[in-house]
Amino acid sequence: MNSSFFDRRTPTLDTCQPGVRHIQELIRHSTPVRLQLISGTELEGTLRWQDLQYLALCSGQDLPLTLINRDAIALIRALV
Amino acid sequence: MNSSFFDRRTPTLDTCQPGVRHIQELIRHSTPVRLQLISGTELEGTLRWQDLQYLALCSGQDLPLTLINRDAIALIRALV
Amino acid sequence: MNSSFFDRRTPTLDTCQPGVRHIQELIRHSTPVRLQLISGTELEGTLRWQDLQYLALCSGQDLPLTLINRDAIALIRALV
Amino acid sequence: MNSSFFDRRTPTLDTCQPGVRHIQELIRHSTPVRLQLISGTELEGTLRWQDLQYLALCSGQDLPLTLINRDAIALIRALV
Amino acid sequence: MNSSFFDRRTPTLDTCQPGVRHIQELIRHSTPVRLQLISGTELEGTLRWQDLQYLALCSGQDLPLTLINRDAIALIRALV
Amino acid sequence: MNSSFFDRRTPTLDTCQPGVRHIQELIRHSTPVRLQLISGTELEGTLRWQDLQYLALCSGQDLPLTLINRDAIALIRALV
Repeated sequence: MNSSFFDRRTPTLDTCQPGVRHIQELIRHSTPVRLQLISGTELEGTLRWQDLQYLALCSGQDLPLTLINRDAIALIRALV
Repeated sequence: MNSSFFDRRTPTLDTCQPGVRHIQELIRHSTPVRLQLISGTELEGTLRWQDLQYLALCSGQDLPLTLINRDAIALIRALV
Repeated sequence: MNSSFFDRRTPTLDTCQPGVRHIQELIRHSTPVRLQLISGTELEGTLRWQDLQYLALCSGQDLPLTLINRDAIALIRALV
Repeated sequence: MNSSFFDRRTPTLDTCQPGVRHIQELIRHSTPVRLQLISGTELEGTLRWQDLQYLALCSGQDLPLTLINRDAIALIRALV
Repeated sequence: MNSSFFDRRTPTLDTCQPGVRHIQELIRHSTPVRLQLISGTELEGTLRWQDLQYLALCSGQDLPLTLINRDAIALIRALV
Repeated sequence: MNSSFFDRRTPTLDTCQPGVRHIQELIRHSTPVRLQLISGTELEGTLRWQDLQYLALCSGQDLPLTLINRDAIALIRALV
C-alpha cells in the first residue's frame, strides 16, 4: 500500500467500481468472509466498513474491530 | 499496491493497454487461468471481471467470486 | 509504502476517514494495541501519534518510540 | 506495483528511459531472458511486449503468454 | 516504496511531519538506531541523512554508508 | 515499486536528492557494490546507470547487464 494519504484527498470511495460495490454488499449483508493477506495470513469474520485505506473486520461478538490495510490484502471471498 | 483509490477517479480501465485487453479476452472467452500471487499462492479458475483494483475469479460453479488485489498478483497465464 | 513523500504535500491526515479516526481514538485513549506487519512480525504497545507515513508505538515506559511504516502494517487491533 | 491505473492515463511508455529501451531491445531481438520475481520465483523465456503494468513472456512455442506484473519483478537479465 | 521519483519533484522533505522530524533528531544526535526491514532483516548504526527515498546508515567508522530504501523499512527505533 | 510509469513523465532523475547523487558517484567511480533485495537476495557488481525505475548492474566482464527494479531494492552499499 501505499498511496493512501494522497487518496484521502478524495473523501469517498468510487462506488462505481465493481470491487468497491462487491465489498459494500458483503458489508451490507454481514456475509462471513475469509481474507488472505499477502503474507499468507488468513482471517475470518464479517466486514463492517471500508474506507480508502482500511477494511474493518469483526471476528466475533464483543471483540474490537481489526483494521486491515487494503494494500496488505491478497484475496477476499465470501464463505459458503 | 496501492494507488488504487487515487485511480478510482478514473472510472474506466484503459483498454488500449495490451495487458488490460489480454485480461479482457480471458474474461470474454471464460478461459481457464492460473494466477500466482506475490506470496507464491496459486489460484485457478475463470476470470469474470476486472476493475482498477481487483480481478474477480470464479473457482467453481456455485462458489462465490474471489476478489484478487491486482497489486498482489505476480503472474497470469491461460491454462493449456 | 510508498507515496508518503508525495503525500507530505498534504500536511494533515484526512480525519474524515474512518480508519484515521479509529486510530486517533486508539491514541487518545492509550488503548493497548497489537499490530501485525506484512512480514508477520507482531508488536504490542500503545500508539502515541500518527502522521502520513508512520505510527509511533510506545512499547513500555522509558522505552524510546518505535516508528512503524504505515505501508508495512497489515493489521491493527485493540487488545481486549 | 501499484500506480498502474493512474499511469494508464499516459498511454505510452516513455521510451527515453534506458530501462524501457533496454527491455524493448530484448523484445525486438527475441533475446532469451531470465526474470526473478520479488518472491524469488524465476522464469525464463522471451519477452513479447511491455505495457505500463505488464511484461508478456513466452516460455515456449504454442504456450500461451504469461502476463508478469512489472511491480512483482525484481531482476531482468539476458541469458548468455 | 515506490512513488519516489514522482516525489523527487518536491525537492525537500516536509519537516512538519512528526516522523520526518523524529528521524531528523536521530540524525542530529547521532543516536544509535535499529531498523527492521520488511524482509525481517535488522540493521544497526547511526543515521546520517534522509532524503525522499533513502536513509543513509553508518554501521561503523570507516565503513561506507548504506542506502536504505525507505519503502523497505518496517520499523525504526532508537537503541536504549 | 511502483509509480514508475507515472514518474516517466518526469524524464530525468532529481540529482539534487542525496540518494540519487550517491548512486551517481558509485556509477562514476565503478565502485563495487552489494545490493540486498527485499526478498533477501544479494547481488554484487558495479552499477552502470540508473533511471527512474531501474538500476543496471554489471556482475562481470562480458556478462549482460541485470536490470534491478528500484522498488525491489532494500539496501545499497559500497564494498570495502
